[in-house]
Amino acid sequence: MKAVGIIAEYNPFHNGHAYHLAEAKRVTGADVAVVVMSGNFVQRGEPAILDKWERTKLALHNGADLMVELPVFDAVQPGHLFAKGAIQILSALGVKDLVFGSEHPDVDFIDLAEKAQGIEAEKKADKNQTYAAAYAADLEEATGFKLEDPNDILGFSYAKAIVESEIEMNLHPIGRIQAGYHDKEFDEGAEIASASSIRLALHKGKMDKVQKVVPADAFKALQEKPNALGFEKPFFDLLSYRLLTDTVGQLGQVYQMAEGLEHRLVGVATAKEAPQSYQSFIKAVKSKRYTFARMQRTMLYTLLNIKVDQMQAAMADSYIRLLGFTDEGQAYLSEVKRRARLPIISRVDMGLAKANLRLDYKAGLIWQLLAGDRSNKDGQDLSRRPIHYIKEED
Amino acid sequence: MKAVGIIAEYNPFHNGHAYHLAEAKRVTGADVAVVVMSGNFVQRGEPAILDKWERTKLALHNGADLMVELPVFDAVQPGHLFAKGAIQILSALGVKDLVFGSEHPDVDFIDLAEKAQGIEAEKKADKNQTYAAAYAADLEEATGFKLEDPNDILGFSYAKAIVESEIEMNLHPIGRIQAGYHDKEFDEGAEIASASSIRLALHKGKMDKVQKVVPADAFKALQEKPNALGFEKPFFDLLSYRLLTDTVGQLGQVYQMAEGLEHRLVGVATAKEAPQSYQSFIKAVKSKRYTFARMQRTMLYTLLNIKVDQMQAAMADSYIRLLGFTDEGQAYLSEVKRRARLPIISRVDMGLAKANLRLDYKAGLIWQLLAGDRSNKDGQDLSRRPIHYIKEED
Repeated sequence: MKAVGIIAEYNPFHNGHAYHLAEAKRVTGADVAVVVMSGNFVQRGEPAILDKWERTKLALHNGADLMVELPVFDAVQPGHLFAKGAIQILSALGVKDLVFGSEHPDVDFIDLAEKAQGIEAEKKADKNQTYAAAYAADLEEATGFKLEDPNDILGFSYAKAIVESEIEMNLHPIGRIQAGYHDKEFDEGAEIASASSIRLALHKGKMDKVQKVVPADAFKALQEKPNALGFEKPFFDLLSYRLLTDTVGQLGQVYQMAEGLEHRLVGVATAKEAPQSYQSFIKAVKSKRYTFARMQRTMLYTLLNIKVDQMQAAMADSYIRLLGFTDEGQAYLSEVKRRARLPIISRVDMGLAKANLRLDYKAGLIWQLLAGDRSNKDGQDLSRRPIHYIKEED
Repeated sequence: MKAVGIIAEYNPFHNGHAYHLAEAKRVTGADVAVVVMSGNFVQRGEPAILDKWERTKLALHNGADLMVELPVFDAVQPGHLFAKGAIQILSALGVKDLVFGSEHPDVDFIDLAEKAQGIEAEKKADKNQTYAAAYAADLEEATGFKLEDPNDILGFSYAKAIVESEIEMNLHPIGRIQAGYHDKEFDEGAEIASASSIRLALHKGKMDKVQKVVPADAFKALQEKPNALGFEKPFFDLLSYRLLTDTVGQLGQVYQMAEGLEHRLVGVATAKEAPQSYQSFIKAVKSKRYTFARMQRTMLYTLLNIKVDQMQAAMADSYIRLLGFTDEGQAYLSEVKRRARLPIISRVDMGLAKANLRLDYKAGLIWQLLAGDRSNKDGQDLSRRPIHYIKEED
């Protein structure tokens, strides 16, 4: 069977994702779409608005065949690490074709990535420039291509991961329709909108707008979780709590805590007139050198109390966590299972929850705590089985 | 001027406390009543239902003249350490008479404490008996007195602290009226009820009952803080959060974490079907050897992330924190100030908040977080001045 790989967050799942799944199969002639998806926290360091199981179900209902989780140590990372983790999981599952949306679908990203080898922007980035900006400038100098659009940047990260890890995988960039990645508003009558504009509409309670741009079952799921967007206050409460109770020494061991940021965090959290919201807190501690997303990720590592050594150990010991499949996805899995180059995990027991899976397990427990949802006493992982979606006959 | 000392929690302040303040002055002929009061967390490890400033104000309005805080490292402790901390502060302020309620006001507690010296119940306490129970049995054997009533136990602790620290202080036990310490219900028409029965009535929303047994201004304060009793859920959320994110090694350093309790805590918090409330959680982790109160205190140390070394350093470096005074209290303070045997702190700046006062400062910030009250951006300590209550002329 032929598989096409897709890397996604589905936060939330929308019509553009369904279109992308169909297109991916069409352009590659694949039998199954294998999706590696962020778990309960997404790349920008935010809690996903629906948990990984809800999002898996929606994806299976709308074109995906095999859903695997991108572990939290790969998902909540800058683009290049996010891409590397996802590509390795797809490759470990025998996937040799990747489809992704791009603002420049005619560009040969593998060629670009090969030409980019050797660029070391780290040294050049100064205090007023992010690493990404310094890198893009160097890349343009070397290749003439201006890497500035968000999907191009992700696509380039995939290509770089493939080139650097010497992985056998073909890239199929496809043009995006109707909605720009960062568009905040969407047109009346549009059937495709970006995930961020949909989250904004959800925040504003504009459910009629949302209804037009997501599949019917996704709309139902979003309606049934009216608190799905209320993460900011509990997130900031727990984060404040940690900053008020941990020593600077303890905070200094958190992954990505650098350049004395821990002192600034504690200083601001315990100051007279401390910021009263998460957004204003991030603004108060952020320097020009850091992107907002990087600050958010570091705050999430702090919230999850993930130390450098734990992160490194977890990243060196990855796995393929099954979230769900259709019959076709299951058939593909049987075919590739024996030669998969990472352990396949379909069920998490307490042993695994304390070993390899500990960061994802912890992330799931904290996601539930943030969601105020203790209804599932087993949490997000223990005893949960992959969703087997059986398509209805037409 | 002559002062009488009182050790209190005022959680909440009620008619019995007002009676006690008046009686204390009457039986000792004192000019001023000096009260050392628990801060924002009380001896049983629970958040006080009104903050220390509200409680100070109510006490000053109802008979107290000088209010000082029992620091969190003395307040949230088993009886003997609570007593020792409080006695030392009163003694440092030149107080030589202590009045306390007792079920046996005719007993000579100092004599009892002297006879009790040398009892070492620790060795005898086995897994099915608390230390307190083993101690009481030994004491009865040595003196014939059965130490079993809660106020007697506290009074005995005061006596023991006085004897062991060779402090010059006279004890004046006075009989309690109408209400037993642990009485859960109170009679119709009663004007005196125990603090715990009042908390229970508040929980049940029986405000008409509460109104009869607290001074009018205390009733108003309790009415204005309708969420004052809603601490249990946020407390359990934050505690769960810590247990889910800290390593067993980190938790093992918490003050009073003994006999592998940290393993049991993490085991229960991360188990399948973890307890859904704080009460059921405590029951699940508690052994027969520990009292409920001790477990609650250890959970509070865990919440505040107070490590053994921090606790020891704080206890060795105590102070007299002024919360408020009347004109008479202020006059008494001027008289004793120069020979006070502990530093007197009337205003907390960031320097103190990071040094001696750090545990109280942290406790105040967490109390506000639990109360969901960020309205006072300066928190409970920074820049707060002692309350100066000027009595109205009759």
